Amino acid sequence: MKTTISPKLTLVGAGPGDADLITVKGVQALLAADIVLYDALVNAELLKYVPLGIKKIFVGKRKNKHAYSQDQINALVIDFAFEYGHVVRLKGGDPFVFGRGHEEVLYAEQFNIETEYIPGISSCIAVPGLAGIPVSHRGTNESFWVITGTTGAGKLSADLKLAVQSSATVIILMGLSKLEEIVELYLQHEKQDTGIAIIQNGSLPSENMAIGTIDTILDIAKDERIGSPAILVIGDVVKNHRDFPKNLKDWKYLLN
Amino acid sequence: MKTTISPKLTLVGAGPGDADLITVKGVQALLAADIVLYDALVNAELLKYVPLGIKKIFVGKRKNKHAYSQDQINALVIDFAFEYGHVVRLKGGDPFVFGRGHEEVLYAEQFNIETEYIPGISSCIAVPGLAGIPVSHRGTNESFWVITGTTGAGKLSADLKLAVQSSATVIILMGLSKLEEIVELYLQHEKQDTGIAIIQNGSLPSENMAIGTIDTILDIAKDERIGSPAILVIGDVVKNHRDFPKNLKDWKYLLN
Repeated sequence: MKTTISPKLTLVGAGPGDADLITVKGVQALLAADIVLYDALVNAELLKYVPLGIKKIFVGKRKNKHAYSQDQINALVIDFAFEYGHVVRLKGGDPFVFGRGHEEVLYAEQFNIETEYIPGISSCIAVPGLAGIPVSHRGTNESFWVITGTTGAGKLSADLKLAVQSSATVIILMGLSKLEEIVELYLQHEKQDTGIAIIQNGSLPSENMAIGTIDTILDIAKDERIGSPAILVIGDVVKNHRDFPKNLKDWKYLLN
Repeated sequence: MKTTISPKLTLVGAGPGDADLITVKGVQALLAADIVLYDALVNAELLKYVPLGIKKIFVGKRKNKHAYSQDQINALVIDFAFEYGHVVRLKGGDPFVFGRGHEEVLYAEQFNIETEYIPGISSCIAVPGLAGIPVSHRGTNESFWVITGTTGAGKLSADLKLAVQSSATVIILMGLSKLEEIVELYLQHEKQDTGIAIIQNGSLPSENMAIGTIDTILDIAKDERIGSPAILVIGDVVKNHRDFPKNLKDWKYLLN
């Protein structure tokens, strides 16, 4: 038992799924944890780095089934920091990419608890890349735009109306339930030929992908039985994928 | 000496600067390299993972001083893959974020060389985060937009004209030389009060930052003697930074 407690919160990005996509610094934090709180999208294999005898608590939120609310997690972090010392919060992807990580930092700082952020590999870049779609490719796009599919109000972000007019690769996280609405918006801008891919369980052996164009993707996603959690990638970088033509129902790209 | 050569190219993201921000998988690739080609923005400390006797070749491009052209790098990769076997291309940040990584993949595939992509921590998310600015914060923004400051044509990307109208956090990589032009664009849209930070040498002990609003940043950047390489972050998430008010020349945010 420790005689002095030094309360500290370290947010660690666990990466997109594959356990070896955590950083060396993230591993060091797990090795030095006094208690670990981990989320639903974290690969549980990473808990192997936590020393024996250290508590590992699952505080994951799942759709329609909140194990802990964000307020409860915030409060737990404070209690544990004063009781155990170094709290490691292991979060999927990167803690600052729609992960409410900064809320946890701000809350802990109110109690004068030292905080540290260790970035993680964000799914928004790595999942398309690992599936064979680079988020940027010289000559194709000069930017990429990452949007959360689930805003506080539960609506599609209004930013998407600007994104659809740009050269940006658009990456939508947690947006599968909005797919029809997104397709409709692109059709309104006559972007029916724009490439789109939907990647479920990216970076994991269970990865599944639908790839096509705006005007074919609804059928393809249905055929491929794509489910959540999934990432949408929209833009002409999708056409860099080696499977792109053969997944198209009408093969029209082969004729160009 | 190996008797059989298995040509392979692995692109490895080295992360934003701090050597411990490489992934475990990236370290594994360096340990298994037959030859390593590394870029200018890579922390040379990472070469400690390369086994003794394995060649490490610097192919970095620096401003106005190209050690190797992209074509030369592409050709070297092929030559080395057939001569040595496993070529590890260590690139700053993530290889697919404006890194021309996918061009190297496509080139190698023409020679039937097996390729692998190991994502890296991209500066676009981690550098602001490590400097105390989360790229997303609930209630502040629903998206973030990453734009390269140096397009093929050397001009500011036209996408920025759409980005300025959105709620997105705008992150501009390699854009310091365009700062005046960017400020002008935001002023045209009456965004003089939008927060902006410029971070040089992010994640390293030499990190330097200027933080203010669109109408104060030119002076602040000059006072702080900010130089390249630097990342620009524009949007109201910047106001989450704990130093935000005291860096403002007119202190007006303290009065709100």
